[in-house]
Amino acid sequence: MPARQMKLGAFFLTPGSHSAGWRHRDAIPETDMSFAHYIAAAQVAERGKLDCIFFQDTAALNGSGDLDGTGPWRPRTGRQVYPEPATLIAALAPMTKHIGLVATATTTYGEPYTLARRFGSVDHISGGRAGWNLVTSQIEDEAGNFGHDRHPDHALRYERAEEFFDVVTGLWDSFEDDAFPRDKETGQFLDPSKGHILNHEGKHFRVRGPLNLPRCPQGRPVIAQAGSSEVGKRLASRCADMIFTAQSVLSEGQEFYADVRARAVAHGRAADDVKIMPGFMAITGPTEAAARQTYEELQALIDDTTAMKLLARLCGDLNIYDHPIDGPLPPLPPSNAAKARQQHLVEKAAREGLSIRQMARYLGTSLGHQMVVGSPTQVADVMQAWFESGACDGFMLLFPFYTKPLEDFVELVIPELQRRGLFRTEYEGTTLRENLGIPVPRNRFAPR
Amino acid sequence: MPARQMKLGAFFLTPGSHSAGWRHRDAIPETDMSFAHYIAAAQVAERGKLDCIFFQDTAALNGSGDLDGTGPWRPRTGRQVYPEPATLIAALAPMTKHIGLVATATTTYGEPYTLARRFGSVDHISGGRAGWNLVTSQIEDEAGNFGHDRHPDHALRYERAEEFFDVVTGLWDSFEDDAFPRDKETGQFLDPSKGHILNHEGKHFRVRGPLNLPRCPQGRPVIAQAGSSEVGKRLASRCADMIFTAQSVLSEGQEFYADVRARAVAHGRAADDVKIMPGFMAITGPTEAAARQTYEELQALIDDTTAMKLLARLCGDLNIYDHPIDGPLPPLPPSNAAKARQQHLVEKAAREGLSIRQMARYLGTSLGHQMVVGSPTQVADVMQAWFESGACDGFMLLFPFYTKPLEDFVELVIPELQRRGLFRTEYEGTTLRENLGIPVPRNRFAPR
Ligand SMILES: Cc1cc2nc3c(=O)[nH]c(=O)nc-3n(C[C@H](O)[C@H](O)[C@H](O)COP(=O)(O)O)c2cc1C
Ligand SMILES: Cc1cc2nc3c(=O)[nH]c(=O)nc-3n(C[C@H](O)[C@H](O)[C@H](O)COP(=O)(O)O)c2cc1C
Repeated sequence: MPARQMKLGAFFLTPGSHSAGWRHRDAIPETDMSFAHYIAAAQVAERGKLDCIFFQDTAALNGSGDLDGTGPWRPRTGRQVYPEPATLIAALAPMTKHIGLVATATTTYGEPYTLARRFGSVDHISGGRAGWNLVTSQIEDEAGNFGHDRHPDHALRYERAEEFFDVVTGLWDSFEDDAFPRDKETGQFLDPSKGHILNHEGKHFRVRGPLNLPRCPQGRPVIAQAGSSEVGKRLASRCADMIFTAQSVLSEGQEFYADVRARAVAHGRAADDVKIMPGFMAITGPTEAAARQTYEELQALIDDTTAMKLLARLCGDLNIYDHPIDGPLPPLPPSNAAKARQQHLVEKAAREGLSIRQMARYLGTSLGHQMVVGSPTQVADVMQAWFESGACDGFMLLFPFYTKPLEDFVELVIPELQRRGLFRTEYEGTTLRENLGIPVPRNRFAPR
Repeated sequence: MPARQMKLGAFFLTPGSHSAGWRHRDAIPETDMSFAHYIAAAQVAERGKLDCIFFQDTAALNGSGDLDGTGPWRPRTGRQVYPEPATLIAALAPMTKHIGLVATATTTYGEPYTLARRFGSVDHISGGRAGWNLVTSQIEDEAGNFGHDRHPDHALRYERAEEFFDVVTGLWDSFEDDAFPRDKETGQFLDPSKGHILNHEGKHFRVRGPLNLPRCPQGRPVIAQAGSSEVGKRLASRCADMIFTAQSVLSEGQEFYADVRARAVAHGRAADDVKIMPGFMAITGPTEAAARQTYEELQALIDDTTAMKLLARLCGDLNIYDHPIDGPLPPLPPSNAAKARQQHLVEKAAREGLSIRQMARYLGTSLGHQMVVGSPTQVADVMQAWFESGACDGFMLLFPFYTKPLEDFVELVIPELQRRGLFRTEYEGTTLRENLGIPVPRNRFAPR
């Protein structure tokens, strides 16, 4: 049996996951809207044999309802406009051959029938490379775009997400694999005995079905999930194939890894069928000195006002601007938007004795994800340590800007991982499930 | 000034607009789900310099709630499964260069914010070639997939459609064209004075905005519309750039053309900014005899059970199976699904003295659209007569199956139209609006 290897995804938050990354001399800030640049980036990632590219999403201009009252916009950071990602991955499908295409879409607003069609269609168009990152909406700005004043409560959002998942996956099972003979001779286009009506009636949704789409090449798209509160972990361990998490301390990573795998087993799943991939930002270069220099350049560009806005939106009802910026982080009231993330912040500030400004800059650098600045060897060392000590199955790679740091990773770090036998040199299969090494789910309606 | 030329779209209802077309010897029934075939078809249409390809849509399996009680499926006709069209046109964007990409999406279910993002994203990705066919949902099967027992009433659907249009177009104006300087030196990514919050509060929707997308290359995607009842025409004349209609008698075409243009002028628009394109099915070949043969082959394949289902769903609450199939069409109670279409049927049956079976076969052949069987010259003659007598600005071409009839049209009829000076030999511009010869709408928020 070949040795266990890492799974790697490239996370896209254009024009950069670093709040000031777009201003770096090598950055192309137009990557947010330029389709040509998305194609280029996807092809670089595919050259690096990554498992997938992974697009975040919010159904609102992030920052349109800023908490500090200075105005509705965030003029200094990008992260605001980009093609709707499920549309974008469809367009990237014919421009790539092997790489998985994962887009984020919320379960808090919108209809499961529509979502099932869209992601199912991408799976067909791409020959089995689609993934759906199921989220429960992190930014409150979305509410106003869907007729609400505020987000529904955290608990209610997760309850809706569980049911949303059940409906969408039920719809994806509407037809058995061989339901469409399309037989010119007999005139039988469809075999009705292979079609199934869902008739879902739940608390949040009533959906009849069937989905007007044959079963997907992957059975269903790969499901990713990223919430990590208690209810977030419950959803992830039951539903997700791939979990994008935010642990940056090894022991926390190990704890999360063991916890979620045990939960998956409790749901009757094989632990290895859930791939756990913490976020990871590598700032690298041919030498450690070159990496350090890029890092210093980036930090010199950070603007505290922008960084403070990132912190402010994790503070729940507390107005962080009422507190001295170089003083300690005060206790935070519960956040409705992102419980797990807020808790991580509070623990980090306490552990490392960080001030408000330092916490803001921490968020402004890597969104709170683990960051390593170093040579390709140093970067690979950290990745290997996590991978081999029961903390993860791979990583979701974050980039401070596009596209150079992705190219650097592919050219410098990937070969190092390959030399160590930690990463593939060729794609194992043609679908994302095959490359991740996870099974095609059984159709719930098919005879055993 | 160059002579006025026709606008032509290729309509897609895979695996064929003829109810038994998929069984024809030259048909490829797998065109419904095969992305490779969609690419091939789009490229053929682009070779023919057509203005656009145009995908119908229903958010349900058409026929899943059949009225005749024999079961939930329509095993003998295709027209059931296909990639969700807004996803499909995104994927076709990088595989084509010039042709417009129009997808249908309903306003009866779903959220305007999501729709604005998706079609706006396709416009960006395709460099200004997107179009949205705004419909009010023709098949009742959709209701059950969105938590309803039945469609909302015809009048209410149109009321919602009018407001849906206002919200979507308002969101598309969220940013002025130059709102994103992305200036690395000054650090200004966004110019907040060029961003606008919609704050729509209406009867059906409350939507704050802004849309998280810069203004589209076309200002906004081209809007197509296809309803032709009284309220349908009101909506079309106010909102649509392109109208897909179903007149098949010249005098009716002329009447509709004059009526809708006058209504557009009453809405303060230029009559020529609305392109009126009736459906048109050409069955052609190198000679009239070859065309006739194809037609006979197709008619021999029609199955009355399938054709009757097409008729049954236009009969409102009347059970058409209670009436002798070779007797006259009885008076029909009002249909909630498609008023204008039903009226067209009743008038045609009366005028031509057609039986129930004949009406069913008529629908099963060209969905009730005009059909011409003949040589390329004969086909071009009919098109020219309509175009030059004030009945239309061009045609929406229907094909009995895919892809051969589309290839025949491009190879045989297009050169004939070009010889007559009735159709372009090169695309005029790079966007769909430029090719249609219609203006980019002003941004409602921009200073005059
Ligand atoms: C690493 C990570 C990535 C996320 N990406 C998104 C995203 O792209 N869009 C979104 O609306 N929410 C995103 N979320 C938010 C989650 O879906 C969820 O709404 C939020 O984390 C609150 O749940 P929790 O308290 O369980 O973490 C992300 C969360 C994490 C931890
Ligand atoms: C030529 C034509 C094409 C249409 N295409 C669609 C379609 O693809 N999907 C859909 O749900 N409705 C479609 N419709 C239905 C209309 O949007 C509308 O719901 C229906 O015609 C009822 O309105 P009316 O009485 O004004 O015609 C179409 C209608 C016509 C006339």
